[in-house]
Amino acid sequence: MPAGFAAGGLGAGIKRSGKPDLAIVRATNGPAAVAAVFTPNAFAAAPVRLSRAHLAATDPAGGGGHGWAEAIVSTSGCANAATGPAGDADQRRVADLLAAALGVPVERTLLLSTGIIGTRLPLDRVEAGIAALAPGLSTTDEALESAARALMTTDSQVKMATASIALPDPDGLAVRTVTVTGIAKGVGMIHPRMATMLAIVLTDAAVEPSVLHRMLRSATARTWDQLSVDGDTSTNDTVFVLASGASGSAGVAAGSGPARLLGSAIEAVARELARQQAADGEGATTLLTCQVTGAVDDPTARAVARAVVSSSLVKAAVHGRDPNWGRIAGAAGNAQLADASVLEAGGLDPDVAAARAGVPAAVDPDRIRIAIAGTLVFDGAVDGPVDFDRSAVRAAMDAPEVIVRLDLGSGDGTGEAFGCDLSETYVIENSEYTT
Amino acid sequence: MPAGFAAGGLGAGIKRSGKPDLAIVRATNGPAAVAAVFTPNAFAAAPVRLSRAHLAATDPAGGGGHGWAEAIVSTSGCANAATGPAGDADQRRVADLLAAALGVPVERTLLLSTGIIGTRLPLDRVEAGIAALAPGLSTTDEALESAARALMTTDSQVKMATASIALPDPDGLAVRTVTVTGIAKGVGMIHPRMATMLAIVLTDAAVEPSVLHRMLRSATARTWDQLSVDGDTSTNDTVFVLASGASGSAGVAAGSGPARLLGSAIEAVARELARQQAADGEGATTLLTCQVTGAVDDPTARAVARAVVSSSLVKAAVHGRDPNWGRIAGAAGNAQLADASVLEAGGLDPDVAAARAGVPAAVDPDRIRIAIAGTLVFDGAVDGPVDFDRSAVRAAMDAPEVIVRLDLGSGDGTGEAFGCDLSETYVIENSEYTT
Repeated sequence: MPAGFAAGGLGAGIKRSGKPDLAIVRATNGPAAVAAVFTPNAFAAAPVRLSRAHLAATDPAGGGGHGWAEAIVSTSGCANAATGPAGDADQRRVADLLAAALGVPVERTLLLSTGIIGTRLPLDRVEAGIAALAPGLSTTDEALESAARALMTTDSQVKMATASIALPDPDGLAVRTVTVTGIAKGVGMIHPRMATMLAIVLTDAAVEPSVLHRMLRSATARTWDQLSVDGDTSTNDTVFVLASGASGSAGVAAGSGPARLLGSAIEAVARELARQQAADGEGATTLLTCQVTGAVDDPTARAVARAVVSSSLVKAAVHGRDPNWGRIAGAAGNAQLADASVLEAGGLDPDVAAARAGVPAAVDPDRIRIAIAGTLVFDGAVDGPVDFDRSAVRAAMDAPEVIVRLDLGSGDGTGEAFGCDLSETYVIENSEYTT
Repeated sequence: MPAGFAAGGLGAGIKRSGKPDLAIVRATNGPAAVAAVFTPNAFAAAPVRLSRAHLAATDPAGGGGHGWAEAIVSTSGCANAATGPAGDADQRRVADLLAAALGVPVERTLLLSTGIIGTRLPLDRVEAGIAALAPGLSTTDEALESAARALMTTDSQVKMATASIALPDPDGLAVRTVTVTGIAKGVGMIHPRMATMLAIVLTDAAVEPSVLHRMLRSATARTWDQLSVDGDTSTNDTVFVLASGASGSAGVAAGSGPARLLGSAIEAVARELARQQAADGEGATTLLTCQVTGAVDDPTARAVARAVVSSSLVKAAVHGRDPNWGRIAGAAGNAQLADASVLEAGGLDPDVAAARAGVPAAVDPDRIRIAIAGTLVFDGAVDGPVDFDRSAVRAAMDAPEVIVRLDLGSGDGTGEAFGCDLSETYVIENSEYTT
């Protein structure tokens, strides 16, 4: 747990199962700098809209993407999406309850929610839960894990990741250890478009919201935007990064060496959480990672990697441990570059990003090489299909992670994407009851 | 069977099962005008590349999209995709065999193939098959059905559709009946992007290739571009429309009344084939149709409809006959407008199409209304969720076609899309063996 935060989670009865469903994270060092990325879904949920409004109130220049906050509350089991004006009123009530319980201004609260779309929050239970949880928030790692557990819906595993870096103190005479720790949930309705499901990343670095926001968007372009479980983008996707400044390190200026270090740590945490989310995808039996090299540039590599892990046919083949490289080639051949906003976040100039958004990725069948679980199966430069030991590759695919590598043979661009296999269990889980 | 064509199909042994796998369609009235739409996949198969080259040779102005042809041969069971230069040579050999057997110039042949990616065509069997089939082509409906049967791979049903219109004869003194008949196959690796799997549409109208091509692209934008089974775009997608002129009707001029009639007939046949393909999607138990009204324009309506039928979560819910409107709202909220080429084919000016390609569709949650199988379940204008009889809707969804209607409440734009449910069978079929 980074310095300057306390957390906790409990079961408030929002979920019928009685499992943990209410989490609170509090900044204990005064308002924390916040950067956020939200779902682009037109049906953005009430907590998404209210969080945007609160951030905009604390930092008008941030347009709802960054600002200051002192507390986050997450309710799990009910998405509070597509609930109309009544749902918005419910969410404002949750914010008021949190603000009153912690003694903070309501515009410095942030809201997360996940679960069934179209149902109302049980406000009486949320009220009782906040009253019970708020006094007992703790700075321990266990408390953060308890909060992470209360984010979960169909997740089978708690998702946490951490990284540490050394940054100078304000005098420049000593270094301080800065910690970046994230918690997240998956695991359905996940697709790469700006953000994916819920994640909270905490750091005790000292950094301005706008600088933090650039770091988050850059990290997201390389991690959460490259994660797909099932091709659907949720109404509630939210990632918050909060920086408390409590490490005692100097303020991190944009473009500085410390900024690069902190940005890398945030990206490392985001990447690890994205991998955990993919591995725990609904019905998944294996993590599917696609690593692309030799692309004309990084956005092209990321587009190809994303297309491969998003393909239903590739995912089904991986489920059957079938080294079906034809489907991988077919998926790579359909890759299209990301949205302009994602391309811009990934480092392209706005004009270039606008011109290249959604265009087909440059893939030359006569240059591409494909390897599955370490074995070359296709080499476009030498007639295509490669003779390989199918049963050995099948055996190598029977692992917790299946890595597909593509060398496009056309440049220095690299990228990766994270997904999972498609199983009968996914279909059963998602057809048998309303989620 | 429209006048001016003969056809046939048989089992040549390309498929191990011995099922029909070789089809020939011949124009008997001299070269037929041809319009084509091919997959945009970078791994376009050898038959796609050779067909494009042949069309370009017969009509340089068409750039491979339209021209003249006298015969089509289709091989099923082997896609001849990602097979390198050897695969290209194999495909040229198939064209030479067809040209020799029918006594037509090789550049007036068109090639189709579908099946496993990355395997070579068994040329000896194809040669024997063409020799056996070519002499016995017939103008009967049964012969066309036999050809349609030989297109199939994992299809469970033969797919055919027909429409008739009356067009004036060259003197303008009498009308001639013009027939438009199509055959097609599905049923996996299907996703809306320019074309979908294999289809051959025949008409005895007299029309120039370039005029025919505009009709085909317009029809495709409203039909095959709106069809999704599993989100994957094949390496072999091809649609050919051939016009023999043998009806004796006058030449159909661009922009004329007869052109509108013929275009509508082609679109009607394409729509019916797309519906048959969706209904027979791999593992599908029901056709899923989404009809959108009240959009700001038609491209927006089509984008929303396509997003709904493409959503894995919506498809799984439909499989479970679960009126899960929250997932429908979520999918609609993620809709993005189509590629520029599809928008242009659908009627937008090139500049407008380029500017709007891929942008989020205009969806206002406060105006949208959603009905499932005839029952209103969500009304954004009056607080959102509507109380409805869940068990009655579940019962109504237990049908060969489930219709989801969305009224966006924002204009006069309409559109529809065709898909199917997602079942365990889809996963099993696609994970248990290489296809």
